[in-house]
Amino acid sequence: MKNLLTDKIFSATGADALVVTQEDYRFYLTGFQSSFGVVVADKNGAKFYTDSRYLEAAKSKVNEGIKVLEYPKGESLADLLKGYSSLALSLAKTSASEYISLKNAGYDIVDSTSAFELSMAIKLPDELKNIKAACEVADKAYLALLPQIKEGMSENQVAALLEYEMRKFGASGTSFSTICAFGANSSVPHHETDDTKLKFGDIVLIDYGCKVGGYCSDCTRTFLFGDDKKHEEFKQAYNRVLEAHMLVKEKFTAGMTGREGDAIARDYLKQYGLDKYFTHSLGHGIGINIHESPNLSPKSEQVFENGMVFSDEPGVYFEGKFGIRIEDTVTLENGKVVSLTDSDKSLKIL
Amino acid sequence: MKNLLTDKIFSATGADALVVTQEDYRFYLTGFQSSFGVVVADKNGAKFYTDSRYLEAAKSKVNEGIKVLEYPKGESLADLLKGYSSLALSLAKTSASEYISLKNAGYDIVDSTSAFELSMAIKLPDELKNIKAACEVADKAYLALLPQIKEGMSENQVAALLEYEMRKFGASGTSFSTICAFGANSSVPHHETDDTKLKFGDIVLIDYGCKVGGYCSDCTRTFLFGDDKKHEEFKQAYNRVLEAHMLVKEKFTAGMTGREGDAIARDYLKQYGLDKYFTHSLGHGIGINIHESPNLSPKSEQVFENGMVFSDEPGVYFEGKFGIRIEDTVTLENGKVVSLTDSDKSLKIL
Repeated sequence: MKNLLTDKIFSATGADALVVTQEDYRFYLTGFQSSFGVVVADKNGAKFYTDSRYLEAAKSKVNEGIKVLEYPKGESLADLLKGYSSLALSLAKTSASEYISLKNAGYDIVDSTSAFELSMAIKLPDELKNIKAACEVADKAYLALLPQIKEGMSENQVAALLEYEMRKFGASGTSFSTICAFGANSSVPHHETDDTKLKFGDIVLIDYGCKVGGYCSDCTRTFLFGDDKKHEEFKQAYNRVLEAHMLVKEKFTAGMTGREGDAIARDYLKQYGLDKYFTHSLGHGIGINIHESPNLSPKSEQVFENGMVFSDEPGVYFEGKFGIRIEDTVTLENGKVVSLTDSDKSLKIL
Repeated sequence: MKNLLTDKIFSATGADALVVTQEDYRFYLTGFQSSFGVVVADKNGAKFYTDSRYLEAAKSKVNEGIKVLEYPKGESLADLLKGYSSLALSLAKTSASEYISLKNAGYDIVDSTSAFELSMAIKLPDELKNIKAACEVADKAYLALLPQIKEGMSENQVAALLEYEMRKFGASGTSFSTICAFGANSSVPHHETDDTKLKFGDIVLIDYGCKVGGYCSDCTRTFLFGDDKKHEEFKQAYNRVLEAHMLVKEKFTAGMTGREGDAIARDYLKQYGLDKYFTHSLGHGIGINIHESPNLSPKSEQVFENGMVFSDEPGVYFEGKFGIRIEDTVTLENGKVVSLTDSDKSLKIL
């Protein structure tokens, strides 16, 4: 019996064999996490070669229709693949040195990247289940965090506490290093969390996500830590960003392009002169990787389909003053957007 | 004024320009963390191109002698590098697609990997300072963890708690996902931390590390959670592994090869028939990356020098029964091994 997913991607490449050495693509095909291994698929089926550390676990855990074998010790990849004439590799994810050694051994190389991206963009039921679980853990952890936030805590402490809560609720780890930004630090979209201490009246921006079963969640919330009555500009902008975020959920549908989705938020913000502060794209695909296909950006002509999972994250950044980003992980179901992270987004004053 | 480090690596490659797009190598040269940027160095000096998100921060933080510029929007790397005829890239870290596009644009490509590896293996004073800080944080966090470990906690909980303590003591994050293994799980060198609950009499193996200032620490401890008097075999093996670990610290010196270092531990364990359970190599270099050059393994002919930082981590694994690994991050100073992580390693019963 063949593994259908592997066979579909192999067939799409048109090569004699599909060769997968990357951790993310290997996990996608095998459902098994390992730091070393090669999947080789051809018209007869798929094999997963790994080393002695993983062999026993792999035999019981690898997806159906993939044969598990020990990687022949000391053999190069070029040796292992003898007999094939053309190989499909991800050129974006294969190193130049590996590519050169296979070319020098006489193989024709074709690129498998787009076959993987197209397939991975539309999530299978088990993948969706893991992403939903990762989103639920992120939501629970955020709610558990809020009452623990106190004046004088550092960004690092708050980030550490949230990461701890995510692990406690069942995450295997974070999907990226948690971004926690207080006050003017929130105006830097990729602020590096530091030892800035929380003060009364600070804006707090937290961008966080975790992994469950190898799949990511991604969420951002922005709120006020106490109301010093000096934040009218923030409050107004907050409600605009929230409205942009909600409009995407309401109006974006399967069949639209990433560009059209991005424009829903961007055009709304433009009415209020806020589009020039919206300095990044609206969203990115989420799955095994925290950033993957498809993209919601002014340049994306990709057509969105049911089963895709992505972020809806409009943001505005006023340099040296403050920033606001409101992000949920969402999916398309029956043509409409469904939110997978979903903790309260109304303007919050802790 | 030139940046000496960048100029040294540029000169070692013999190309018209050194081109660095990888995050780790880029951070090594610039001292600045970013998810996007390119360093281009030639005989006249070095430039760091990055995008608007990082530009202001880069201007104040990038190492002396490197000019910061905005990456020209929409320009390919091949466009940016016009005028050069040969480029030095790390073939191990550049994607095949980037390599192919530069080759197609007519550039000659030489490999910069060994120039980086040689240079990065010997730590500069500021790098050592960060690694020492990361080691101190790991030690403190481990000591803070021990009294919090209780019967019934899961591996995930213990790992989460240790990671939280490392963040609290000042780490920016972990250097890798903490491995926590109870009982027979410890016999799997790369055990995936799970929901196994801690029982009285369990062996506990924890492999952990954190990052400070962009640099890693790495440490492993193995102990008993309560003594059920059934662990004579474990206790005996523990003391052998500890002795192997200590012998390396005593006998390994600058001027010896990685193979000779590995043999100190392996030959000692062989006297007790334990070498066949020592299924990995003795150690690996530690720095910006958790695994880097140099290696202490049966095949490594690399000569060790003062200023190198690496792990000393003998381990034995009895399938389905238990495993033991004792690891410190160490450096060579005045020819001798100095331990950088250094919490108590004597046989511990919690």
